[in-house]
Amino acid sequence: MTVQCDIPFPEPKDTVLLGHGSGGVLTQRLLDQLVLPTLQSESYRTMHDSATLDLPTHSKGRLAFTTDSYVVKPRFFPGGDIGCLAVNGTVNDLAMAGARPIWISVGLILEEGLPMGELQRVLESIKKAADAAGVAIVTGDTKVVDRGHGDGLYINTSGVGSIEGDMAIGPQSIQAGDSILLSGDIGRHGVCILAEREGLAFESAIESDTAALHSPVLALIEAGLNVRCLRDLTRGGLASALKELMLASQLSADIREKDIAVEARVRGACEMLGLDPLYVANEGRMVAILPQEESERALEVLSRFSVTADARAIGKVGEGPAGQLTLESKIGTRRLVEMLPGEQLPRIC
Amino acid sequence: MTVQCDIPFPEPKDTVLLGHGSGGVLTQRLLDQLVLPTLQSESYRTMHDSATLDLPTHSKGRLAFTTDSYVVKPRFFPGGDIGCLAVNGTVNDLAMAGARPIWISVGLILEEGLPMGELQRVLESIKKAADAAGVAIVTGDTKVVDRGHGDGLYINTSGVGSIEGDMAIGPQSIQAGDSILLSGDIGRHGVCILAEREGLAFESAIESDTAALHSPVLALIEAGLNVRCLRDLTRGGLASALKELMLASQLSADIREKDIAVEARVRGACEMLGLDPLYVANEGRMVAILPQEESERALEVLSRFSVTADARAIGKVGEGPAGQLTLESKIGTRRLVEMLPGEQLPRIC
Repeated sequence: MTVQCDIPFPEPKDTVLLGHGSGGVLTQRLLDQLVLPTLQSESYRTMHDSATLDLPTHSKGRLAFTTDSYVVKPRFFPGGDIGCLAVNGTVNDLAMAGARPIWISVGLILEEGLPMGELQRVLESIKKAADAAGVAIVTGDTKVVDRGHGDGLYINTSGVGSIEGDMAIGPQSIQAGDSILLSGDIGRHGVCILAEREGLAFESAIESDTAALHSPVLALIEAGLNVRCLRDLTRGGLASALKELMLASQLSADIREKDIAVEARVRGACEMLGLDPLYVANEGRMVAILPQEESERALEVLSRFSVTADARAIGKVGEGPAGQLTLESKIGTRRLVEMLPGEQLPRIC
Repeated sequence: MTVQCDIPFPEPKDTVLLGHGSGGVLTQRLLDQLVLPTLQSESYRTMHDSATLDLPTHSKGRLAFTTDSYVVKPRFFPGGDIGCLAVNGTVNDLAMAGARPIWISVGLILEEGLPMGELQRVLESIKKAADAAGVAIVTGDTKVVDRGHGDGLYINTSGVGSIEGDMAIGPQSIQAGDSILLSGDIGRHGVCILAEREGLAFESAIESDTAALHSPVLALIEAGLNVRCLRDLTRGGLASALKELMLASQLSADIREKDIAVEARVRGACEMLGLDPLYVANEGRMVAILPQEESERALEVLSRFSVTADARAIGKVGEGPAGQLTLESKIGTRRLVEMLPGEQLPRIC
């Protein structure tokens, strides 16, 4: 589509203007010359009204639908940026329902003055993460808010996935005696963000663990394992995720500190900053809860994927008291783990 | 679900804290005590991972999927607020694809310091608009950004709808000779917002036209009319919508000023402010393009719904030049209508 006026092409050195959000030629130019070519989405039309989509033929008509807004600060960090985080986070929310991610939307809230070069980097990151996860970016929206009323950019991604299995994956399916698997080491994303924000220097940068988890999840399901419940560890970390699951299932959980991997640098940073890694956010980690007798087979499946190669069984589900989470320390003492009252780390996703 | 600590209930006089967005007890309390009871959504669980949904049995597996972020300023205005706008806008995007709106997500980006009472008003408005449109709020997300990095609240709504008809509704279906129907008077939403923002006083407040359009759209389809294309008039108004459709279809359009209703107060305000109502945003108006011979029947169908009771035929589609939009003035002169280069009114939705 051509535009009949002579407003210059947005250069990387240019910045976002309020007019880029108001539906006129500037908006169209931003979309046609930067957003759509970078996202390689099919057309302006498809992007800007509803996308019209046909479910895969093998779909049984059961869908997963999720939304998340991303406001992480800083926008760029070792191991990722707000763009790939926004894709991986929503892909993971779909995967946690046992769904195959199919479609994703990208809603941008840009602040006037954002350098076009930064927007382009974020869009490239969105595209790369979507391609890696096999999801199609099918619809989008771009708004601009005035200087001082945003923080560069916020991204909302919503996702639709197809649920192909028959299992009811969720806290209602958890049973006493089930095994709790953790897909990898914890705390990297939160510590990475905090280190960037506070200007902490380590010998080598701690990288975020942001990653998509749908492939190992679908492999667990395809292997015929009775996946009872899945939960990705985001805000509030491992402790909050398990605590929420136990409150919802009215069961209890016992976990072992010795089986919960924390990278040495992450542990060091947490000690220095007074953080408990149990509560620190991850963006590419999950817990999977399955019958105890399937635990070994599940770990074997997870070991095939690099993102879950270090998965371990970290504990088991008990009969109660409802919502109780107990941690057995490395020296064998046991303590109750509670939910955090307020924030440990704001704006980590 | 009960929470095991003594953080007080959020009172309307309280304000949003950063901790309300960080995934701990405060987040859960905000959700359990304000967001979920107000939205009457089924469960925290359903809200916070993916919602799991079954398509209606009569669905053919064709879906519409759309997203929009809402950053309107001010948040409350005569005739509506950011909450109902966010629901109606997304319902309309689904309707414009000929889809029956089914599910909607609500993603909130709250600014630290937002009064809880305002949040509650917005949530109530979201709920009321969703009920009126017959869409279920099935999933959501809440983030908090620090003071000075937002504007009270931004809302993203994404929607999924079921396409029941077999028509390809879109610019590719438009044909030369088709009739262009406009569903009501134009310019009210944009002028309403601008009047509020600039503190302009009229004898009686100009109310936004925000409304859901899916009922008349579905009635057109159910009446067996060959709806070629639908487009709601948002940012950029009637002129931008038609201009975009003509660029996409590679056809031209001729419209008649005398048939385009503009309320007297809106016209007066536009003259005073130097605005052309053709470009002023609406949030409850659409154009419908159909074969000329079905125009009368379509108007009869639209007349049954209050939101489209004043629909009129305003012109017709021509064979080109591609993208050309011509306006015949009330005195019979003709002029070309172009797209606006920048913004006329920023942040109207």
